[in-house]
Amino acid sequence: MRRALALAATPGVPMVADTRRVGCVLLDDAGRTIAEGFHAGPGTPHAEAAALAAAADSAAGTTAVVTLEPCDHTGRTGPCTQALIAAGVRRVVFAEPDANPTAAGGQARLEAAGIEVVSGLLADEAAALKRVYDVARAEQRPFVTWKLAATLDGRSAAADGTSRWVSGTAARRDTHRLRALCDTMLVGTGTVLVDDPLLTVRDAEDRPLAVQPLRAVMGRRDLPADRRVLNSDAQTVLLRTRDPREALAQLWARGRQHVFLEGGPTLAAAFVRAGLVDEIVCYVAPFFLGAGLSSVADLGIGTLAEAFRPRVADVVVLEPVVEGEEPNVRFILTPQHPADHQERE
Amino acid sequence: MRRALALAATPGVPMVADTRRVGCVLLDDAGRTIAEGFHAGPGTPHAEAAALAAAADSAAGTTAVVTLEPCDHTGRTGPCTQALIAAGVRRVVFAEPDANPTAAGGQARLEAAGIEVVSGLLADEAAALKRVYDVARAEQRPFVTWKLAATLDGRSAAADGTSRWVSGTAARRDTHRLRALCDTMLVGTGTVLVDDPLLTVRDAEDRPLAVQPLRAVMGRRDLPADRRVLNSDAQTVLLRTRDPREALAQLWARGRQHVFLEGGPTLAAAFVRAGLVDEIVCYVAPFFLGAGLSSVADLGIGTLAEAFRPRVADVVVLEPVVEGEEPNVRFILTPQHPADHQERE
Repeated sequence: MRRALALAATPGVPMVADTRRVGCVLLDDAGRTIAEGFHAGPGTPHAEAAALAAAADSAAGTTAVVTLEPCDHTGRTGPCTQALIAAGVRRVVFAEPDANPTAAGGQARLEAAGIEVVSGLLADEAAALKRVYDVARAEQRPFVTWKLAATLDGRSAAADGTSRWVSGTAARRDTHRLRALCDTMLVGTGTVLVDDPLLTVRDAEDRPLAVQPLRAVMGRRDLPADRRVLNSDAQTVLLRTRDPREALAQLWARGRQHVFLEGGPTLAAAFVRAGLVDEIVCYVAPFFLGAGLSSVADLGIGTLAEAFRPRVADVVVLEPVVEGEEPNVRFILTPQHPADHQERE
Repeated sequence: MRRALALAATPGVPMVADTRRVGCVLLDDAGRTIAEGFHAGPGTPHAEAAALAAAADSAAGTTAVVTLEPCDHTGRTGPCTQALIAAGVRRVVFAEPDANPTAAGGQARLEAAGIEVVSGLLADEAAALKRVYDVARAEQRPFVTWKLAATLDGRSAAADGTSRWVSGTAARRDTHRLRALCDTMLVGTGTVLVDDPLLTVRDAEDRPLAVQPLRAVMGRRDLPADRRVLNSDAQTVLLRTRDPREALAQLWARGRQHVFLEGGPTLAAAFVRAGLVDEIVCYVAPFFLGAGLSSVADLGIGTLAEAFRPRVADVVVLEPVVEGEEPNVRFILTPQHPADHQERE
């Protein structure tokens, strides 16, 4: 199921609002992988169909591990239940029931055909994937994950603007892993002008992934042609606006479902004030600068009682992977309360 | 041994440079406590002598658990080895060997008298206690623990100055536990004028401890008589200087060995710049203010490579103890490298 979830989160795949990210693995009785598939966007085969196609004649008697309950209706593609039955799959394991009323009923259909069905495996992980889809669909805009890295005194750059690297190697690798779960990376023109980031996703061996998320730069300033974000390592789109809502609308129109917002502090503050941050990934590096760029700009908060207090979904110590470095701490926060989510002006 | 270490760290006891904090517990064969003692300062009985006196005629046949190897020389008091032998103690367990050449040899003397001796129990905890003593003695000034609490964006107060409470209940209780290990609490006049802290140590039930550390306020500004730090809950001393080195010299002259520095940001920065911080306790609260008082003032650092990077001795997640609160993270940092410890100007 972990592999199926990883397949579901394959980066760079353009999705639209009502398209779920789904992964599927076919296993034989010994637990060996026969074939894999993931849903690659609207109009393309569902994950189960992709896996069945890859398995060709070897699908009979296998167990299909799917992140989502197989659909039982004919939409842009045929029902997956029928495809699984026809291929002779013996057993289906899925993480999350399909709550979509038009597609639901898959489990019952499979069981009626004599296929053993197990549900709820790794449901929490599947739920995180589903949350992105649910928020995007409910809000009719991409889900926004804001990532920041700061020192203990809340600085993301020193007085002279240097910011490489605030966080340690373990935190930077973790960032790439999380970037890979999104389909779009978003920064402001200021960040591109000052830091010139590449904004590609690399694996643990620092090799770029084959499929890269879209790079989006928002703002009104022009970018010199030599900026690294404009190179051919991945696709890039320029959004000529400073308004978070407008930027998300443009990305939504391009079928983007999950934006990874990486800076800088002014842009992040604009998203927080507009109530457009759905998840925060914050790396804390255990040192002090005493001056320099704050990790987030003015949020319009005057007193402690008005503080922006998201819920803590997870907090973990990232032990150093390079000698001489110190542990960092990663917080994952979810501003899910209405009071946290509303406009802050 | 944990009880003996707690006794050793009894707060409020005025110590001088070459006085070790030591605790002693006498146990019978069934592990029951017969008597306890701690060293209460120069000229007073050593911990062992205090425990033996408390035990009166019941010391014979007991096990003496001591944080430090019993001394074997006559200083301001007689040798503890002789007292233990004379009292008929059967067994001695200690955490840390006495490295002081004039007092060493206790283990050998006790063994020669037929007493069983075990060493090294909870040596790490004893070493932390010893470090305070060692640094104070080597530097001829009190050991300085700087405590700060900050938001994820490094703020210790909101734009209007409100700062109660940045950290959660669990972190505040933890602070009181750590305050109790020090003999002096130090703040600047600015903190007293703005926050009016009480600066007493309270236990987990929020009751003030019977023995309180000294409260020290440094700076040149006058304090109104109604400030809480001037009340009778504990002793208070005013240090009429803005110079960290001068303030520590005054406290050292008063026999103070361990200062808990609690603010504010300007005072903390002055200590860091002067290389006079030996340990940092930093609580991170998982929320944002976007504006307000930075947790530390300018450190004279211009670029990332010059950052103040202490070693991480410990990092721990403090789970909330009150419903509705979020976990905090506590870092314990030690600026022990020469490069971290030198003057920063």
